[in-house]
Amino acid sequence: MNYKIIKHILSKVLVIEAFSMIFSLLCAFIYKETKLIPIWLISIFICFAASFLISRKSPENKSFYAKEGFVAVALSWIFLGIFGAIPFFISGYIPSFIDAVFETSSGFTTTGASILTNVEALPKSLLFWRSFTHWIGGMGVLVFLVAILPLSGGDNFFLIKAESPGPSVSKLVPRVKHTAKILYKIYIALTFVQIALLLLGGMKIFDAITLSMGTAGTGGFGIKNTSIADYNTYSQIVITVFMFIFGVDFSLYHLLLMGKPGYLLKSDEFKAYFIIFFSSIILIALNCMQFFSSFWETLKHSAFQVVSIITTTGYATTNYDKWPEFSKTIILFLTFVGACAGSTGGGFKVSRLVILLKSIAKEIRVSVHPKSTVKLKMNGRLVEHETVRSVNVFMASYIIIFAVSLLLVSIDGKDFTTSFTSVLTTLGNVGPGLAAVGPAGNFSSYSAFSKIVLTLDMLIGRLEIFPILILFSSYTRRK
Amino acid sequence: MNYKIIKHILSKVLVIEAFSMIFSLLCAFIYKETKLIPIWLISIFICFAASFLISRKSPENKSFYAKEGFVAVALSWIFLGIFGAIPFFISGYIPSFIDAVFETSSGFTTTGASILTNVEALPKSLLFWRSFTHWIGGMGVLVFLVAILPLSGGDNFFLIKAESPGPSVSKLVPRVKHTAKILYKIYIALTFVQIALLLLGGMKIFDAITLSMGTAGTGGFGIKNTSIADYNTYSQIVITVFMFIFGVDFSLYHLLLMGKPGYLLKSDEFKAYFIIFFSSIILIALNCMQFFSSFWETLKHSAFQVVSIITTTGYATTNYDKWPEFSKTIILFLTFVGACAGSTGGGFKVSRLVILLKSIAKEIRVSVHPKSTVKLKMNGRLVEHETVRSVNVFMASYIIIFAVSLLLVSIDGKDFTTSFTSVLTTLGNVGPGLAAVGPAGNFSSYSAFSKIVLTLDMLIGRLEIFPILILFSSYTRRK
Repeated sequence: MNYKIIKHILSKVLVIEAFSMIFSLLCAFIYKETKLIPIWLISIFICFAASFLISRKSPENKSFYAKEGFVAVALSWIFLGIFGAIPFFISGYIPSFIDAVFETSSGFTTTGASILTNVEALPKSLLFWRSFTHWIGGMGVLVFLVAILPLSGGDNFFLIKAESPGPSVSKLVPRVKHTAKILYKIYIALTFVQIALLLLGGMKIFDAITLSMGTAGTGGFGIKNTSIADYNTYSQIVITVFMFIFGVDFSLYHLLLMGKPGYLLKSDEFKAYFIIFFSSIILIALNCMQFFSSFWETLKHSAFQVVSIITTTGYATTNYDKWPEFSKTIILFLTFVGACAGSTGGGFKVSRLVILLKSIAKEIRVSVHPKSTVKLKMNGRLVEHETVRSVNVFMASYIIIFAVSLLLVSIDGKDFTTSFTSVLTTLGNVGPGLAAVGPAGNFSSYSAFSKIVLTLDMLIGRLEIFPILILFSSYTRRK
Repeated sequence: MNYKIIKHILSKVLVIEAFSMIFSLLCAFIYKETKLIPIWLISIFICFAASFLISRKSPENKSFYAKEGFVAVALSWIFLGIFGAIPFFISGYIPSFIDAVFETSSGFTTTGASILTNVEALPKSLLFWRSFTHWIGGMGVLVFLVAILPLSGGDNFFLIKAESPGPSVSKLVPRVKHTAKILYKIYIALTFVQIALLLLGGMKIFDAITLSMGTAGTGGFGIKNTSIADYNTYSQIVITVFMFIFGVDFSLYHLLLMGKPGYLLKSDEFKAYFIIFFSSIILIALNCMQFFSSFWETLKHSAFQVVSIITTTGYATTNYDKWPEFSKTIILFLTFVGACAGSTGGGFKVSRLVILLKSIAKEIRVSVHPKSTVKLKMNGRLVEHETVRSVNVFMASYIIIFAVSLLLVSIDGKDFTTSFTSVLTTLGNVGPGLAAVGPAGNFSSYSAFSKIVLTLDMLIGRLEIFPILILFSSYTRRK
């Protein structure tokens, strides 16, 4: 293992984190939060100092393989959560350091699960930081690193591969660096369009920026205790549309911009995403009719919640924990499935579900006609055997990590619904669950031990299991 | 599709069911249940009549392939549940026919989930029938058919394959017929040993026979409202030991009898079964200390419940729904995992779990060292690629059927714990779940629609998904 290159990457990640905090410092200046200014200066200093201590100069041996990629990504994300927690902790707004790390990791992993009981008590610069972590985490920090830094010599693809969601990574263009740049340009452009549209509807600029960052990263941290419920209908619709947009594979947008709209319509994943989304809205709207004043009102809340959950954002316009069991079960199903691969959303991913369903159909056909040859296709192309295998292993790991986490969290003795949905929602990077961790609840009452387990689940979910497993696995230590 | 051979098999299955009912008729004579005698005579007549109507003579074309095997097995089991329900229904003890089919299918699939609120109200011959269905269903009806009937010409192996649990079927001896006979001999012998041991402890003969049949089939129907709680400690221990025994792969007993005890100790599945069993007992005992008067008492209940659930029997000596959440989560984990392949138990099967864990370990190793070649081994032998693939497809189908069933059952609006564990326990053929369907509850309050869904789940669980899926799939209707 090339430890030096890993240290080098960690050091750069801390520099990015320090620079990110400068925006919050700026925010503290603008809103005249004089008490917060030294807090931000100290936090930025700590990040720079740690970066300097970890690695001072670029290593000579830049050999970089899969193992280094996984370990560097896993450690980077753990570091982001720990160093990003410093302003919350030293400002005293989150007095427990474990709580602060939970909150920050929830931000970077775009989960949006919170231990805060009163979000509105936070000063604006800290609220900005919470939302900004979503925006950074959504696209991926290592993707950013690859886009801007000259990490020549090594194969950067391993970094992107370990950080990117979905069963297979598509290089949009031959060079990894260019792919990363294209993704970030689309991301930034879409975020600005959303901010502009929200401002047009009369939203305050601070709200428009923070909520757009939370939407773009499919994070879900709000800046009000009622999440999105108190904003006007126009704003709610804009957010609904943009959540949907950020849940789609970004490479399809790239192809759209290149004048190839056909790919969007031919994509099996996009079709399935749309079918799940559409049928869920209709079923919930029919099931929840008596909860709202009109059908239009029902449809609006149903659409908002379905999109919010399937994209793993986690914003809420209503307390859906009070909906009938059937609708809540659909919400749980969406919490598990998640968004499209290659989007900023989390979860199991629609494409994996499609591959599994197709492989079951294939199995049935082969069982009945043992001599027939059935090919598994996605988007009209043959799915590689290797991809199917990795989807299967992913599913098995997901279920086993789920079971182990549930067992560990159950030590706290909370009711089954709370424990089950806590694990489901952190592993899927959604944010809210049901019962005590529902849209009107939060994670504050969990023990420190459970908070650590759930923080790891958020990281495991965001990095799609293997980087974290490999970090803790003994194989990496062997030659 | 060769419909004539399928009809022929269904006709034979109904003859077996009619003969099975003769034991209950005998029971009605012995206990002088004069009102029940005509009920049994009518039921037996209906089975014979239906058998005669379906198929009168052996078909000339005996060609028999995978497709016919799956369809014949699926239909046989549906028929068993429907015709076996007749005595419950016409006697008036279960006034709803859907309830009666639920109860009977629960019997044959060795689930043990009940819609009865007061078991003790049933006459002895009906109680005997309930327990007898467990005993027949445990080893498999088609296995029995293959053992006794001259189904020459066709390949009987497809029948056994479709009915037998586990990722791969081992032929103990080259001829399928002999394998089936050996399995039945071991099954009958072990059942008699258990009856004898229970009688030695002073149990009444009726109780000893019915409870032993429920143990052998890993069913779980008791004959008292308190299940096994009111029997003496000796009886509880005998049942604990025999539940464990019936949860082990029967082919290991065959090898043991052949003077090859080494296989038992070398079996990876048996090792994992023992580790799960042992660690669960310890963890639950430590967690439930304050619930019982002594450590010995705690250990006894903990061991009984762990074995009862992992073998998917479902007997209870205590209302474990009142245990702490941590212990209940272990119980749910055991409900999912189930027993060893090749036993009479249900669930996902320990061997599948072992294969999944090994394939995850392999994935991690290959991710880290892309050039290394790692082989997946079970019991010291290479696991065929085909087996791993089928385990993966099984897992995916299991999860998807689980999700769909949960969604359908949630329409009833019961709390999440009840709905979730109802599906888990029926699909795993365990019997009790938690909350409203816990060891002190039952399934009576579900709607007819949910009862049909859960009945299908029991059949899907017992036949390991594919026969039922293939029956309903359109592929079978195509050429």
